[in-house]
Amino acid sequence: MFYANGKLAEKKVFKDPVHKYVHVEDRLIWDLIGTAEFQRLRRIKQLGTTFFTFHGAEHSRFNHSLGVYEIVRRMIDDVFDGRPEWKTEDRMLCLCAALLHDIGHGPFSHSFEKVFELDHEEFTQRIIMGDTEVNAVLRRYDYHFPEKVAAVIAKTSDNKVAISMISSQIDADRMDYLLRDAYFTGVSYGNFDLERVLRVMRPYNNQIVIKQSGMHAVEHYIMSRYQMYWQIYFHPVTRSAEVILTKILHRAKTLHQQYYTFKHQPVHFYSLFEEEVNLEEYLKLDENIMYYYFQVWQEEEDSILQDLCRRFMNRNLFKYVDFVESKHALNNWVEISSLFKKAGIDPEYYLVVDSTSDLPYDFYRTGEEEARLPIMLLMPNGDLRELSRESEIVEAITGKKRTDRKLFYPHDLLTEDPKKAKIKEQILKLLKG
Amino acid sequence: MFYANGKLAEKKVFKDPVHKYVHVEDRLIWDLIGTAEFQRLRRIKQLGTTFFTFHGAEHSRFNHSLGVYEIVRRMIDDVFDGRPEWKTEDRMLCLCAALLHDIGHGPFSHSFEKVFELDHEEFTQRIIMGDTEVNAVLRRYDYHFPEKVAAVIAKTSDNKVAISMISSQIDADRMDYLLRDAYFTGVSYGNFDLERVLRVMRPYNNQIVIKQSGMHAVEHYIMSRYQMYWQIYFHPVTRSAEVILTKILHRAKTLHQQYYTFKHQPVHFYSLFEEEVNLEEYLKLDENIMYYYFQVWQEEEDSILQDLCRRFMNRNLFKYVDFVESKHALNNWVEISSLFKKAGIDPEYYLVVDSTSDLPYDFYRTGEEEARLPIMLLMPNGDLRELSRESEIVEAITGKKRTDRKLFYPHDLLTEDPKKAKIKEQILKLLKG
Amino acid sequence: MFYANGKLAEKKVFKDPVHKYVHVEDRLIWDLIGTAEFQRLRRIKQLGTTFFTFHGAEHSRFNHSLGVYEIVRRMIDDVFDGRPEWKTEDRMLCLCAALLHDIGHGPFSHSFEKVFELDHEEFTQRIIMGDTEVNAVLRRYDYHFPEKVAAVIAKTSDNKVAISMISSQIDADRMDYLLRDAYFTGVSYGNFDLERVLRVMRPYNNQIVIKQSGMHAVEHYIMSRYQMYWQIYFHPVTRSAEVILTKILHRAKTLHQQYYTFKHQPVHFYSLFEEEVNLEEYLKLDENIMYYYFQVWQEEEDSILQDLCRRFMNRNLFKYVDFVESKHALNNWVEISSLFKKAGIDPEYYLVVDSTSDLPYDFYRTGEEEARLPIMLLMPNGDLRELSRESEIVEAITGKKRTDRKLFYPHDLLTEDPKKAKIKEQILKLLKG
Amino acid sequence: MFYANGKLAEKKVFKDPVHKYVHVEDRLIWDLIGTAEFQRLRRIKQLGTTFFTFHGAEHSRFNHSLGVYEIVRRMIDDVFDGRPEWKTEDRMLCLCAALLHDIGHGPFSHSFEKVFELDHEEFTQRIIMGDTEVNAVLRRYDYHFPEKVAAVIAKTSDNKVAISMISSQIDADRMDYLLRDAYFTGVSYGNFDLERVLRVMRPYNNQIVIKQSGMHAVEHYIMSRYQMYWQIYFHPVTRSAEVILTKILHRAKTLHQQYYTFKHQPVHFYSLFEEEVNLEEYLKLDENIMYYYFQVWQEEEDSILQDLCRRFMNRNLFKYVDFVESKHALNNWVEISSLFKKAGIDPEYYLVVDSTSDLPYDFYRTGEEEARLPIMLLMPNGDLRELSRESEIVEAITGKKRTDRKLFYPHDLLTEDPKKAKIKEQILKLLKG
Repeated sequence: MFYANGKLAEKKVFKDPVHKYVHVEDRLIWDLIGTAEFQRLRRIKQLGTTFFTFHGAEHSRFNHSLGVYEIVRRMIDDVFDGRPEWKTEDRMLCLCAALLHDIGHGPFSHSFEKVFELDHEEFTQRIIMGDTEVNAVLRRYDYHFPEKVAAVIAKTSDNKVAISMISSQIDADRMDYLLRDAYFTGVSYGNFDLERVLRVMRPYNNQIVIKQSGMHAVEHYIMSRYQMYWQIYFHPVTRSAEVILTKILHRAKTLHQQYYTFKHQPVHFYSLFEEEVNLEEYLKLDENIMYYYFQVWQEEEDSILQDLCRRFMNRNLFKYVDFVESKHALNNWVEISSLFKKAGIDPEYYLVVDSTSDLPYDFYRTGEEEARLPIMLLMPNGDLRELSRESEIVEAITGKKRTDRKLFYPHDLLTEDPKKAKIKEQILKLLKG
Repeated sequence: MFYANGKLAEKKVFKDPVHKYVHVEDRLIWDLIGTAEFQRLRRIKQLGTTFFTFHGAEHSRFNHSLGVYEIVRRMIDDVFDGRPEWKTEDRMLCLCAALLHDIGHGPFSHSFEKVFELDHEEFTQRIIMGDTEVNAVLRRYDYHFPEKVAAVIAKTSDNKVAISMISSQIDADRMDYLLRDAYFTGVSYGNFDLERVLRVMRPYNNQIVIKQSGMHAVEHYIMSRYQMYWQIYFHPVTRSAEVILTKILHRAKTLHQQYYTFKHQPVHFYSLFEEEVNLEEYLKLDENIMYYYFQVWQEEEDSILQDLCRRFMNRNLFKYVDFVESKHALNNWVEISSLFKKAGIDPEYYLVVDSTSDLPYDFYRTGEEEARLPIMLLMPNGDLRELSRESEIVEAITGKKRTDRKLFYPHDLLTEDPKKAKIKEQILKLLKG
Repeated sequence: MFYANGKLAEKKVFKDPVHKYVHVEDRLIWDLIGTAEFQRLRRIKQLGTTFFTFHGAEHSRFNHSLGVYEIVRRMIDDVFDGRPEWKTEDRMLCLCAALLHDIGHGPFSHSFEKVFELDHEEFTQRIIMGDTEVNAVLRRYDYHFPEKVAAVIAKTSDNKVAISMISSQIDADRMDYLLRDAYFTGVSYGNFDLERVLRVMRPYNNQIVIKQSGMHAVEHYIMSRYQMYWQIYFHPVTRSAEVILTKILHRAKTLHQQYYTFKHQPVHFYSLFEEEVNLEEYLKLDENIMYYYFQVWQEEEDSILQDLCRRFMNRNLFKYVDFVESKHALNNWVEISSLFKKAGIDPEYYLVVDSTSDLPYDFYRTGEEEARLPIMLLMPNGDLRELSRESEIVEAITGKKRTDRKLFYPHDLLTEDPKKAKIKEQILKLLKG
Repeated sequence: MFYANGKLAEKKVFKDPVHKYVHVEDRLIWDLIGTAEFQRLRRIKQLGTTFFTFHGAEHSRFNHSLGVYEIVRRMIDDVFDGRPEWKTEDRMLCLCAALLHDIGHGPFSHSFEKVFELDHEEFTQRIIMGDTEVNAVLRRYDYHFPEKVAAVIAKTSDNKVAISMISSQIDADRMDYLLRDAYFTGVSYGNFDLERVLRVMRPYNNQIVIKQSGMHAVEHYIMSRYQMYWQIYFHPVTRSAEVILTKILHRAKTLHQQYYTFKHQPVHFYSLFEEEVNLEEYLKLDENIMYYYFQVWQEEEDSILQDLCRRFMNRNLFKYVDFVESKHALNNWVEISSLFKKAGIDPEYYLVVDSTSDLPYDFYRTGEEEARLPIMLLMPNGDLRELSRESEIVEAITGKKRTDRKLFYPHDLLTEDPKKAKIKEQILKLLKG
């Protein structure tokens, strides 16, 4: 068999609750799925701490990656194949980029990257280009293939069609995660009509556009997305767990820097703490490893690390109030912080403002620093028109930055222990206004 | 508030993909869910290694336990409440028993219990009766409540109605796991009509019976169950992963007994290896901890432990053939084993027969060692008739023991390494016949 | 049995694809469902001519009426029951009003009412108050009950809570038809989370309000509604069939007024043609009767009636273009009409402008002639706030009148018959611009 | 455009609730759907009187016919295309046969054919071969095409593969109606895994076989079918409505033969009553026409016709008891009949035994008069084995004739009118035993 165009002797399928089946007929895809780096995605949850709020959300990035691949495969095999502007030779490039799009994610990406100043996109590049099984498989197909796939994911490729299938305002990545996250959490918001959206997509002028007759299906997709963000992804209970997680990592790093002696040496974290992570070490990290440390750190002597880990393991989370500038900022902030200290509670770890403003902001905005391609409608006369100029519902939310800031704090510490009750009462009064 | 009858100020709900919502209005239930022991169930998958075959099956026992609770709650609040044979005072007992039914499960129960000769049912009893948060919460409700709940789960209680809601041939446990496992794997087999089954259940003569008019719904449930066992639970790929897992634990235990020096000391396993596990140690074990060790053991010097862990982590599983008495047993077995040794592959770890005969066997059989209560139909005239006497489909599978025996072996070791190729060829010939 | 509070000996259920089951425990409800007037709703489609576009939409008003009843029943029994502002004695009133809400609908309501200048709401009142089985059943419950039920449906009752359950911007009627029409057409747009919306509804200050925490679920409902209107209810193919239907009725009436001799006397239509319909005659009309006439009129001598009936029966509909003021109005209209006449095609029946502007307009507007109650959010502090002031998405579509005007014409007559080809060519040019 | 291989300029889709979309790319298919004879199927319900029991079951044969077409299209385009044993030139033949399979059905087929001694299969042949739009469209494709399509539907064709796609134990017809009837009634029984079944089908040795690895999916399909028959299709309430319908037709025919003067002459029935139906008359018949007569016959003077029509229109059906040989046959039958007469109730119309034994009987039996092809499994070694020899569940129901006989009677006439109360009491005693 000539590997490059290798088809499997018999098509394989994965039973998938979202797409019914994920179909694989190419040996290259099959082999990529079998690599250690891809299998590692089974040990990283798609939605990090969301399962604390929506208990069904225990699905992994492995799941999602297969789904993105399947959507791109359908676009190509069921819709684009045979159309004038579609280049058959792009098929494998698009499939691989779809499958490997999230390969660089670490455990609990959001918190993890923040504390250790890492970027999963960089690791995606390193995994594809470095000394890995993924790289070997891709290179077996074509010596320059890893570079090509990496460039599509990095959005530096000349192949704009491939890029827009994976990362645009209506790409396979978003379409899969909306449907998948809706399925696993059990909410109905994310259920737009994937089949209809796929059927109106077209490669056109070096990008993917939407036939105008499909505008309503795209509106529905965008509304689904809007709802999912506010109902699921930004849920304050999830963010509370994330706040605690971030503070655990922050505390452990600080202790390490202060030469604290851990009962259980965090060997997996050393290079992270020292900000010199190599690829091999990075690949060993997954959420199981993290949980292992959270488990054993419950018995550390440092009371902050111990307490935060116990909270995380037992879902004893922080409560929250809306952060109100006039109530909580400036002098008030100084006062509240100082009262926390008086009450014996370290505000650095126990008084946390979390803001989600940045995320919804970049949905349908164009022309900013990291400009996102707008969704273009292909009109019956062949013109292209930007979606929000045709859809009043989309227009209503285009470019609107919506911010949610919350103040997280350990309500139990302020109410259950009678010591310094006066101060605590005062804190609660200031927090709740 | 008088705790014993405590209702929450506002009903709480959990969004659940299977039951839409899980409703909690009792403080006792809310507090039990918040215990460390119950939260621990989030770290144990409901279906162990099944996710290697059906990637959606990543849901935890936490999920399932809430579901069993919800089904029992509906039985009581929507169907039994107000009926003559239903005792209102049993409500809380049934709800707690439903919720805590699986609380004693360890990680990867099946393999784990086999290798370490443990019994999760015993740990369920110890968790409910011992020095735990669960015990404290139950005792706050009523000093003798832990004993009562434990007795229902252990099936030693006098309250046969409560027992049959949790553990009988058509109990809330089975009903939830069929629907839930079908949902997360994405197969349609498990979708019987829960609402219809609930509506035809009645407490009657100290057990739960089914109104005869609902017989077809029960048939459908039983067929669903049959299909789920053969399509999902006994899938050979899942069993292959389980075989490897069992052999990992077996190898680690053996090495420990042989005073092997682990690079990374398996402190969490010491008491298991020595078969003297106390409750506190047991509760620290979860699948994250297990995966941590499998991860680090990939770098152990012992080549068997190393290899098996790599296989498990990277889903490089054993292949299988049907085990055929005439081809594989007796002298042939001796010959194959001896060839394995000659090829440098230890048959104790790499040549494994796995049989699933025991599981389907006890579905609808009665009168055996651990006799299971049959499903009784309540006829219009008030008589009770055993289901299989009314339903020819159920009769067809009643008491039929169906066995599936497979022989698992590392196909790659026999084909990819050219050393001792002749012997390996001979092995393959003997295995495949 | 004292009828007034009569419960059925055993609860009855109807299997319903949208709500799973419709539950009936009251004898009064059971008896109402059994009346001739209610059974008649089986012979009137919920969506009139929509099935020509979405073939699944063949469901009847009987279906929908049961669904509205079931939603109101759940509001009451699962959510309102026991709350301080809910009056138990309103239960039966609300259930009956829900069930009978659409009882006065005629066949293909929209076209029918337009041509014969009837109003289904008036017939609803006459059915409830007149000499009917429905009236007899209601009166058996309480002599003044028909008046009370009729007043709730007519929105003249003092019981504003009952009115707002049945007819407001988020009432049981709309909630059922969105879910039901989505189900039967097979589109996903209508799938908002009914269970969540129900759980956040409250009777408060003599109306039904929504807890603020449920705002997103209501947004989702409103977006669903918006999508359903533009994707399903206003679909131009459906309107094309309705245009033809309207013209059939119009033609038959005109012929009757001109003393045309029908081969098949339209006895069921006489009183309609003469605009003196009594209740008994009205109740005999259903869509089967209409189809009977359309069938036989296919063989009438009048070529217009014959042609229009054949079109309707065989789904040979009119084509359409957007109606553009500058292209199609004023002098242009006169010119096109006159060309139609020259081509031998009567423009009164074959050149039709249909506009849907009125329908979306009254979604979320307040303070107009027939002011609709706005949706009020109940804030945590007990205040009420109008929805569009809290939700930017809803705000975006509030009060926005969106109009769609289309021009319908028989494309086939202009292209398939070579006679007067020049004139026809000219017509097509003027129509399409 | 060369018609024979004509593709539509743009693929058309029908939104279908069961298959999501029905795809049409061939002009021939599009034109067939547009014929008067095919559109007529919109006016015949798929499940006759079932909607009286399951109110959702209002879907038409038009719906189902599109569904059968779509399943065959998927078999061909997604599974068979490119396989060695599949002949590309059979594609259009199979698609047309699928689409037109039910074209000859009359209104309420079962009762209709019984009373008027007609056979819808004969009319299918006449419609395809006669002077119809369907014939003209088929002939435009290929002069001999009507004959070929008709032969596949009649099972007389040499093309066994085509026949087995449309009419075998696991054909597209059955697969669609199980899924569709389950969807519209709202029950879950019919939900087997269509996609999986399709993927394991293969043309092989001039028939369609099932890969052995798909056996469980086929078992599931067969169990679904079994459940649907007993839960839906044979539901006694549906049969009660059918009994009344049959008796209406029977009565009208009898009256006609007795020169009874109808107030409203049943012109549409004349040729039926006289058993000389021509094709043109047959095609005018649909359920709307039938309902028209049932409506007007409610006011006939003949009290039996009047009463039966009122019952049917208002769903005032007969009650039923199991027909028990020892209680109801022979002398007892004579006695009951004679008591009916004494009570002034004509037993010919009001005392009816209905038996459903024949239908389940021919499910999975082989070798009888009209032998049905068994389902063959294609074993890994290329052998074929009959399904019931591999599946113990299927074996359990193979060839088992199950009969359900019920006795239908008007309970209301025996209880609500006090005249001849003694006799009626006696009747009830004899009926119920």
